[in-house]
Amino acid sequence: MYKKLFIPGPTHVREEVLEAQAAPMIGHRSTDYSDLHKEVRLKLEKLLYTDQYVFLVTSSGTGVMEGSIRQAVRPGKKALVTTCGAFSDRWHKIAVMNGVAADRIDVEWGEAITPEMVDEALSKEAYDAVTVTYNETSTGVMNPLKEISTLVNEKYPDTVVLVDAVSAMAGAKIAVDAWGIDVVFSSTQKCFALPPGLAVAAVSERMIERAKEVPNHGYYFDFLTFLKKYGKDQTPATPAISLIEALNTQMDAILEEGLDNRWQRHIDMANVVRAWARKHFALFPDENYLSNTVTTVENTRGISVADLNAELAKRGAMLSNGYGSKLREKTFRIAHMGDLQVADLEWLLDQINDFLGLG
Amino acid sequence: MYKKLFIPGPTHVREEVLEAQAAPMIGHRSTDYSDLHKEVRLKLEKLLYTDQYVFLVTSSGTGVMEGSIRQAVRPGKKALVTTCGAFSDRWHKIAVMNGVAADRIDVEWGEAITPEMVDEALSKEAYDAVTVTYNETSTGVMNPLKEISTLVNEKYPDTVVLVDAVSAMAGAKIAVDAWGIDVVFSSTQKCFALPPGLAVAAVSERMIERAKEVPNHGYYFDFLTFLKKYGKDQTPATPAISLIEALNTQMDAILEEGLDNRWQRHIDMANVVRAWARKHFALFPDENYLSNTVTTVENTRGISVADLNAELAKRGAMLSNGYGSKLREKTFRIAHMGDLQVADLEWLLDQINDFLGLG
Repeated sequence: MYKKLFIPGPTHVREEVLEAQAAPMIGHRSTDYSDLHKEVRLKLEKLLYTDQYVFLVTSSGTGVMEGSIRQAVRPGKKALVTTCGAFSDRWHKIAVMNGVAADRIDVEWGEAITPEMVDEALSKEAYDAVTVTYNETSTGVMNPLKEISTLVNEKYPDTVVLVDAVSAMAGAKIAVDAWGIDVVFSSTQKCFALPPGLAVAAVSERMIERAKEVPNHGYYFDFLTFLKKYGKDQTPATPAISLIEALNTQMDAILEEGLDNRWQRHIDMANVVRAWARKHFALFPDENYLSNTVTTVENTRGISVADLNAELAKRGAMLSNGYGSKLREKTFRIAHMGDLQVADLEWLLDQINDFLGLG
Repeated sequence: MYKKLFIPGPTHVREEVLEAQAAPMIGHRSTDYSDLHKEVRLKLEKLLYTDQYVFLVTSSGTGVMEGSIRQAVRPGKKALVTTCGAFSDRWHKIAVMNGVAADRIDVEWGEAITPEMVDEALSKEAYDAVTVTYNETSTGVMNPLKEISTLVNEKYPDTVVLVDAVSAMAGAKIAVDAWGIDVVFSSTQKCFALPPGLAVAAVSERMIERAKEVPNHGYYFDFLTFLKKYGKDQTPATPAISLIEALNTQMDAILEEGLDNRWQRHIDMANVVRAWARKHFALFPDENYLSNTVTTVENTRGISVADLNAELAKRGAMLSNGYGSKLREKTFRIAHMGDLQVADLEWLLDQINDFLGLG
């Protein structure tokens, strides 16, 4: 039985999008491919409000995370990593595993990173890059990306802003150029509502210039290598063509819905889940920084989340337990992203109410 | 009009395999996924004659190339890169771009790397790794992998053998354990006859031990990170689930065909193309090292390969021009890999004969 996915990726994928993957295969150095790539790129530029570079990377978003931090930090310089949960912490792990020097700002899980925190750290020491996790999928916190990014741009022009928007892009507004973002990336299996296997990255001119100053920063995720094929609307290595076909189909649907409508639908879905959580449980994150795409519910009733999910499986749905040993069973997560609708969330919450005997 | 692909990847993908991608989406931390992953892994172990590790990596093969050379060479040590064309040369480019010290053995394009060359280099200096490109897609040379790998294993136990089998795996035998290969990888869009976007890698215990001795070797392609999820039959980052569904379908077809039959079919297809090339043109590579999966034809008639391909497009086929500025128009390439059959090649050659007025 198909389980509709209310987990924060992979999310539910519509039949039409699944089937778009099955287009006949084409050569990746052919004009057929370049035409497809260009179409998708132009649609993504609209989604991301950017006139700079948009790359399609065959990997999960984590790969671009690694590539961007390797390319952003010059020898003898450091990155400032802001962490508020498991995924923002991954930036630091990746920096360490690549020999990139990095300091941290840490807040408690459930709290957000503020522009003031970043300002304070950057005022004390020069950093080549600051990392921001727009939507921390483990805690359900949405960090104030616009405020952080514009602050860094205005006050610290040598610091590039690297943004993990894996669980936000295509579900919440990201105005790359206006907000002064240097790298922002996502994976297709989140708010794009595609199968996993492809990453989308927007990269600024400033980041390209920075990458030129960083030796030995790798090949597969190297933006300069991507640029060599950019004019032809091709990629350095063979790309995930069937996912790009599906992305093309999906971008049409996204643009047809209208970007503002799309952001609002995600807020509407979030509001339904938040109201339910406040009534029957509690919200885990700081109320001022609630995510528009995933809600982390504090398990104040001490229910068995595993049992709940087992029951939902029988009813054709799946949500997520809390993330990792720190939050498992203490919280659970309901994602409201991509192509899910308010009615889907209402149906899910009805199922939970029914099983738990909630009014 | 669909063009049947006789290019060395992406290759022709059967309808059934294309449609297998459209399976309903599942969560990558679910037992549904683990069951799928395990099924595929066990089938791949048969394909690769290995009891060691098989990883599914969401990237093209190039990504695993980068990961493996970063993990194989300890500080102060070097890699020996053997090059005989554009793709084997990529090993060196990647080493340089990651600050990995590497020496080279170079032969003319069209020639092969021999065990004697490798023996001579390793007898003079200690290397942590040697790279081998099983099938050099640019020149149509198949290097004697078994002989090189077993030699290195027997005489130089500290040297790990890293193998690019991108355009060979699933089209030619690779006995990972018996031949003493430490890393071998491929992309799915070649002899697996799937869409691109997924890499398959077999990794030895010895390579795992080596990786532990190499600091700062990265995250996304780190085999030790893959191992953490291995017992659960999961992957560190979200994998390309729809391609893994397609791979599962395709592996059933491959095992049903029988491995020995499959290797023989590739040789049979190669023989048809070689005989035609000898009659009407000439073979570009050394006759002793002809590839079983792609034939590079020397353009002794000085035809316009671009025009030939334009005509073939009208007839529903596509072959490859020569690789890069060095071989374009001087050679052309006919791939005979994956699910293509002898009859497909005969049809293609008939079309070429007809267009060029050959007997």
